[in-house]
Amino acid sequence: MKAEISPGRLMARIAALGRIGALEGGGVCRLALSDADKAGRDWLVAEMEALGLTVFIDAIGNIWGLRAGRGAGAPVMIGSHIDTVATGGLYDGALGVLAGLEVVAALDGAGIETAMPIAVAAFTNEEGARFAPDMMGSGVYQGALDLDAMLATRATDGGGVVGEALDRIGYRGTDAPITPAAYLELHIEQGPVLEQEGTRIGAVTGVQGIHWTEFTVHGQSNHAGTTPMALRRDAGQVAMRIALAADRIAAELGPPQVATVGVFELSPGLINVVPEQARLTVDLRNTDGAALDAATARLLAEAGAAAEAAGCTVEHRALARFAPVVFDEALVGKVAQAAAARQLSVKRMPSGAGHDAQMFAPDCPTAMIFIPSEKGLSHNIKEHSDKRDIVAGAQVLLDLVCDLAGAKT
Amino acid sequence: MKAEISPGRLMARIAALGRIGALEGGGVCRLALSDADKAGRDWLVAEMEALGLTVFIDAIGNIWGLRAGRGAGAPVMIGSHIDTVATGGLYDGALGVLAGLEVVAALDGAGIETAMPIAVAAFTNEEGARFAPDMMGSGVYQGALDLDAMLATRATDGGGVVGEALDRIGYRGTDAPITPAAYLELHIEQGPVLEQEGTRIGAVTGVQGIHWTEFTVHGQSNHAGTTPMALRRDAGQVAMRIALAADRIAAELGPPQVATVGVFELSPGLINVVPEQARLTVDLRNTDGAALDAATARLLAEAGAAAEAAGCTVEHRALARFAPVVFDEALVGKVAQAAAARQLSVKRMPSGAGHDAQMFAPDCPTAMIFIPSEKGLSHNIKEHSDKRDIVAGAQVLLDLVCDLAGAKT
Repeated sequence: MKAEISPGRLMARIAALGRIGALEGGGVCRLALSDADKAGRDWLVAEMEALGLTVFIDAIGNIWGLRAGRGAGAPVMIGSHIDTVATGGLYDGALGVLAGLEVVAALDGAGIETAMPIAVAAFTNEEGARFAPDMMGSGVYQGALDLDAMLATRATDGGGVVGEALDRIGYRGTDAPITPAAYLELHIEQGPVLEQEGTRIGAVTGVQGIHWTEFTVHGQSNHAGTTPMALRRDAGQVAMRIALAADRIAAELGPPQVATVGVFELSPGLINVVPEQARLTVDLRNTDGAALDAATARLLAEAGAAAEAAGCTVEHRALARFAPVVFDEALVGKVAQAAAARQLSVKRMPSGAGHDAQMFAPDCPTAMIFIPSEKGLSHNIKEHSDKRDIVAGAQVLLDLVCDLAGAKT
Repeated sequence: MKAEISPGRLMARIAALGRIGALEGGGVCRLALSDADKAGRDWLVAEMEALGLTVFIDAIGNIWGLRAGRGAGAPVMIGSHIDTVATGGLYDGALGVLAGLEVVAALDGAGIETAMPIAVAAFTNEEGARFAPDMMGSGVYQGALDLDAMLATRATDGGGVVGEALDRIGYRGTDAPITPAAYLELHIEQGPVLEQEGTRIGAVTGVQGIHWTEFTVHGQSNHAGTTPMALRRDAGQVAMRIALAADRIAAELGPPQVATVGVFELSPGLINVVPEQARLTVDLRNTDGAALDAATARLLAEAGAAAEAAGCTVEHRALARFAPVVFDEALVGKVAQAAAARQLSVKRMPSGAGHDAQMFAPDCPTAMIFIPSEKGLSHNIKEHSDKRDIVAGAQVLLDLVCDLAGAKT
């Protein structure tokens, strides 16, 4: 018999995790390594144990549960994350992890064994909203990021460094990562494309490159009334010009280039004082690595020129540099076939967002399954995906796992 | 005999008040109605009482000490303020109040009586750094601002409303204001003009008009990677355009128009989230009231257009609207004469900053005395004025008071 997803069981788990860190007006806030994240982790570990999975935790706090196969060896891994941005939704990350639990439950329910083990993983700090860079846990897991450097990363909200935060919530483990035989991740699109085209499933071909840069501008604070414009060294106005340059660069390069200024701070931040210092972050993304490098180079040059023209100085810090990633063509094809076999319309598409999957692509066959996001909203408390689409995506994932892991009743 | 300023006594009082709210790297932070402001007020009241002044406190927390004259009637008032911005200096405001105390001490020392009483006043929240508008205390004192509205003004730092803050520090008084016969204020220039020209004394002819406007832009928060630029409603980018418009308007109008964006906040303020809301303040100043009105009207129009073009909405709030002020020509002439009589070079000049004096100008002869500010720095911990200039300014003030109040040994 074929294993089937239980819609009720899957939606119940999504609702249960969604109550942890729930916000007044809807949505959730489970910032990485916060108390809410700890509560979510505790709930997840209990669910894994209830399913009979063997739970592992590594030195950066990644959690994975293993379902044994008939043979030993590397598992087929189903992964994502349960941390969120401050104004997050119920599906970004959580869907991939909870669909993994549902896959295990469905296999158990159908009495299905697999030749290869199956792992369900939740990686630490995928969002990077509290500690930069994002995809920290999966990056360390696969060796793309240095463990000690990541443990020493300071929180943007004054919450100490990652190592301290892990100790505080009790999730600094000692288990050694195992590179899987294959990596699969089910995720909401977080964009408008599938919904606008009425397509049910996205077979993700890769992930666009991401450059995060922080700029700090130093000028001169002074009285807002008595300093003629010509005598000012206004750090704020330089920062505004850097922010607009990022927007203009994206407009001139055109799609798929995007640019976002999400953090912008003035110091001292008083109505009648010319800002002495300004800090902003620029998030640049493109599927074309060369174009992305060029965009970042141009932004740095324009920032330097804007500062010099205003008698200010500017420093920049690379908070994240991820080259575009291409997923395994054969495995992407299997995603499309699995969808078609369930009579689900499917589209091959790149991912506009970074995902843990990109850390695995260099080392093992990797693919992602997208489902539509209502209005393309994500990182937003109004983030929503239709139950029908959630179940369809989970079923495609289940069918794919049965195929890859060698399912046998 | 003529009364003379005691340099040591004056500088000692400036140093003593400067120790209250002193910052690590120099300068002071005595934000209006803060604990440091309370400590400064307590010290000032004790100094007034030690000089035998009768101390009065009104409903908005203004403090004045009265030295009796041979006759009753309205006093010659010497006023300024002791609150500071968060990164303030030792002289902005404090100099005017402490020079007033020195005038009284000098008259006492020389055994000089005056026909008219002399009042030394410190007005509440001149800076407006914590509660807008600025010049709040003197505005209420002279009736330009409504007492109840000001008592209900909320702190920008979440510190409750003015009325609560006054009760908390114990400075909500019951004394009734008396409009003085004349108002004099000694202040540092807070600009570079006197120093650059090597002039010792500024005879201030008036104060430029000030418009403070707060803009709040509402857009749509969304994922920074998956939302094409064309589908965004980025509140932050609209706010950047408003800030740059303010800068451009000042550049195009030319001196004396100035524009400052001192407060700029994005929400949710995360690297990888398109800002849903942005808040900024614009401080516009000009000695020409019509030009200032036109600059503000143009800014509001450009803000609306920028928001509409980006699919966002923008609200604006007038935090302060002060028309330019012209001081009493005869009294300004007396300032110039008093300086000349002491062989001090003098320049007639407008004030680039707002001062409590402007609240008195409509109701009584009013003038200000400026002394040079090193490098024009103010609202800056490096704010400094030369002791020689401080003493010269105080002496001109003393000579003027003796003249106006009818001094007799």
